[in-house]
Amino acid sequence: MTISHRAGLDLAAGATTGDAGRILVSVLARHGHALSTAGFHEWFTEQARRTSFTVEPIPFTALSGWSFDPRTSFLVHETGKFFSVQGLHVRRDRGLVPQWWQPIINQPEVGILGIVVREIDGVLHCLMQAKVEPGNVNGLQLSPTVQATRSNYTKAHGGAGTAYLEYFVQPGRARVLVDVLQSEHGAWFYRKRNRNMVVEVTDDVPLRDGFCWLTLGQLRALHALPNLINMDARSVLSCLQYAARDSLPVTPAPGDDFAAALWRSTAVGEATGSVYTEGEILTWLNDAKTGQILDARRIPLDEVAGWHRTADRIARPDGKYFSVMAVSVHASNREVHQWTQPLFAPCDTGVIAFLVRRIDGVLHVLAHATVEPGYMDVVELGPTVKCVPANYDGLGEEYRPLFLDYVLSGRGRVRYQTVQSEEGGRFYHSESRYLVVEVDDDFPAEPPEDFRWVTVGQLIALQRHSHYVNVQARSLVSCLHACW
Amino acid sequence: MTISHRAGLDLAAGATTGDAGRILVSVLARHGHALSTAGFHEWFTEQARRTSFTVEPIPFTALSGWSFDPRTSFLVHETGKFFSVQGLHVRRDRGLVPQWWQPIINQPEVGILGIVVREIDGVLHCLMQAKVEPGNVNGLQLSPTVQATRSNYTKAHGGAGTAYLEYFVQPGRARVLVDVLQSEHGAWFYRKRNRNMVVEVTDDVPLRDGFCWLTLGQLRALHALPNLINMDARSVLSCLQYAARDSLPVTPAPGDDFAAALWRSTAVGEATGSVYTEGEILTWLNDAKTGQILDARRIPLDEVAGWHRTADRIARPDGKYFSVMAVSVHASNREVHQWTQPLFAPCDTGVIAFLVRRIDGVLHVLAHATVEPGYMDVVELGPTVKCVPANYDGLGEEYRPLFLDYVLSGRGRVRYQTVQSEEGGRFYHSESRYLVVEVDDDFPAEPPEDFRWVTVGQLIALQRHSHYVNVQARSLVSCLHACW
Repeated sequence: MTISHRAGLDLAAGATTGDAGRILVSVLARHGHALSTAGFHEWFTEQARRTSFTVEPIPFTALSGWSFDPRTSFLVHETGKFFSVQGLHVRRDRGLVPQWWQPIINQPEVGILGIVVREIDGVLHCLMQAKVEPGNVNGLQLSPTVQATRSNYTKAHGGAGTAYLEYFVQPGRARVLVDVLQSEHGAWFYRKRNRNMVVEVTDDVPLRDGFCWLTLGQLRALHALPNLINMDARSVLSCLQYAARDSLPVTPAPGDDFAAALWRSTAVGEATGSVYTEGEILTWLNDAKTGQILDARRIPLDEVAGWHRTADRIARPDGKYFSVMAVSVHASNREVHQWTQPLFAPCDTGVIAFLVRRIDGVLHVLAHATVEPGYMDVVELGPTVKCVPANYDGLGEEYRPLFLDYVLSGRGRVRYQTVQSEEGGRFYHSESRYLVVEVDDDFPAEPPEDFRWVTVGQLIALQRHSHYVNVQARSLVSCLHACW
Repeated sequence: MTISHRAGLDLAAGATTGDAGRILVSVLARHGHALSTAGFHEWFTEQARRTSFTVEPIPFTALSGWSFDPRTSFLVHETGKFFSVQGLHVRRDRGLVPQWWQPIINQPEVGILGIVVREIDGVLHCLMQAKVEPGNVNGLQLSPTVQATRSNYTKAHGGAGTAYLEYFVQPGRARVLVDVLQSEHGAWFYRKRNRNMVVEVTDDVPLRDGFCWLTLGQLRALHALPNLINMDARSVLSCLQYAARDSLPVTPAPGDDFAAALWRSTAVGEATGSVYTEGEILTWLNDAKTGQILDARRIPLDEVAGWHRTADRIARPDGKYFSVMAVSVHASNREVHQWTQPLFAPCDTGVIAFLVRRIDGVLHVLAHATVEPGYMDVVELGPTVKCVPANYDGLGEEYRPLFLDYVLSGRGRVRYQTVQSEEGGRFYHSESRYLVVEVDDDFPAEPPEDFRWVTVGQLIALQRHSHYVNVQARSLVSCLHACW
């Protein structure tokens, strides 16, 4: 017996047992049992309509509670909590740029990004939140159940309380499916990591205003829409193990070879048809980590060479990379808020892309051993291309990121292309074009040393541990499932 | 058919296939095919006899090539390589000490600690080196095949060359069995990690002077001797996976229940009789990491409050913890050397202990979620007890490490007790009493929140990845096999 969930993919009987099987059923469930996808869009539009939210750039002197510390020149909050903007001096013994200076966000505390899941009519559904963030280009985006820094949620214990937090911090309240500290943008955060969690609840969960239940199948389809699934949600969803066994119990229909290759790529374990073993990938990563020295030392913000502070920006004269700014936020929906805070604003739209290819029927993605100064351990696996193209204007050809021109040229077959946002709580209007491009047959089989063909299942297995897969690659893993 | 390797443990036929099986055969091989254990001792004594090595404490001004940088006050080498002694300011929001200052070693480059293995008469043997280090209390200790910092081995490429290095850095020269970046002492090193490797060679390997081939069984027996197997060797050996399957194909004899419980404890995978799943251990570690903030910032060495620099020491007036000193080294064996360098000298002998207990026939060790300022990510799994008892003299009872008194009291059954050295390349006469103590039945089953009962197999599985198991716990994993 097979259960047909959509044309092209059949789920073998018996596949629905175990967590991986139950996750798979939810991935294949295009229709929600709590809310239809049309119903979701109505609900989300209504949420947006009821959300009055204004964000205004302000000069640094208009910040309330935030100031430049006279001793360190760091931009800090008076409580010492939340985060601070510090200076960073980076030295490398590889690459074209031997040293540079930049502002960086230091947020030593770890937040929780958590999704509550629950079976509804036997299918796992995710409890998602429609949430505004000051840097969001469109205000409202779909977020995890809980998205809270420790400063927020510990303070909240004495106050209104973060909704649903108890399922993540009270032992025994829920069963843990995913629990891993993941890095965020290593170019803008100093060693930040957030706790990515998925927990399953079996008793009744009250549905609060601003929240909804969606299947994983609904969520993956929503990845096709621009700026809807926020970065934190993409990161958490990418950590779910879709297949615990060597081969997936899914039968693709003839003619949908790409979906079949993608499914085979998500398999976890031995003999999955990957070009390299996990051991070989770890050795390659260790080669990358140990073949170079990157020393990142925090320094006073005033000593960041090449950057200048004006009344309302810390920026470079050439306008490249990003700037530090401040905003005043007014939110007039049910949870009334008014506050000011600093944000990082990128200079332009980014390009974040996986080149993919089928190798013996298994989809492989071209991962890049990415170096960023804020990583805990020098290197993490990233997308094939991750950059803001405008940063390379006027620079020599040798500075141009590898494969950027391939992606921009329109060669290959674009399997996914959607503008997605980065974290709106810290970044102002940070958008990137996310792409999955299947390369032509004439693409070289042997990539340069810093690149390797890996399967999606290998990425997901590594995501069980910290410091392996960077936030942009995790986002793309999440987006990949919108390809079929 | 079973192959009897020693009284008490039989190896089932068919167990010798696969890497784990072949490692197991070597673990059970008490007699070497290259060198008998008696022959090893003769060889080692001869090596020691031929090694003339003097180490003399000197004032800092007598250091050659090393000086206090006038800008940072760091103690640095003129080449900018090797390592430097810097200051550290540590702030915590948990524990009895909210902040402190200390000197710390910064060594941003990653060294290689590598063992070459090769089958001799069908049994894997390890190529070990008799090596002197300036801080070694006894001069010569048994080291991995290669034990080299990047400064040493990259410089060596143009010079004499590090023996056997090619097997670790030239692709295709050997097959990788272990390759993982592991942390070292987080109390004395700022985010240092070394690459722990084991590689298998199938072609002929020339045996150079100062090297010998030993089985894993011979090496585990040698762990019973004080200060023989050096810290680096213990660390690398602990990463070997002794069992890839759910249950070990070893039949313990009646009456050797401890050995049987230890063997069952080394099993890796599902259903191994562990109290907690790996997921539960990871969640507990994430709780420990995220439930506190530890911010460690490097500062000028002159600004380390409470520490004073004299002509030949940087130390505290109370003499506690450790001091920074300098030595002049003369080595007159075949590889002639004379150099000076700084070393860290602990104030007294340490105690490093695992409490262990059998739970449903499976040995569990009581791991501690250990916090040290030099760890990459706040917390790693450490021994039950790891401290220098003298540091707690005169302090209140509340400062005393948990379970230290249990270990010192002679309660329980001591299964292993040997003085072992820490890294002699950076530490001067750093010795600790390493113990494995089986607790009495009246020992509380539920340990305090920062402690968990875990199996040896769980530790070994976590050691496949970085930042999980600290160097002292890895040492104890290596020593555990000398218990039977």
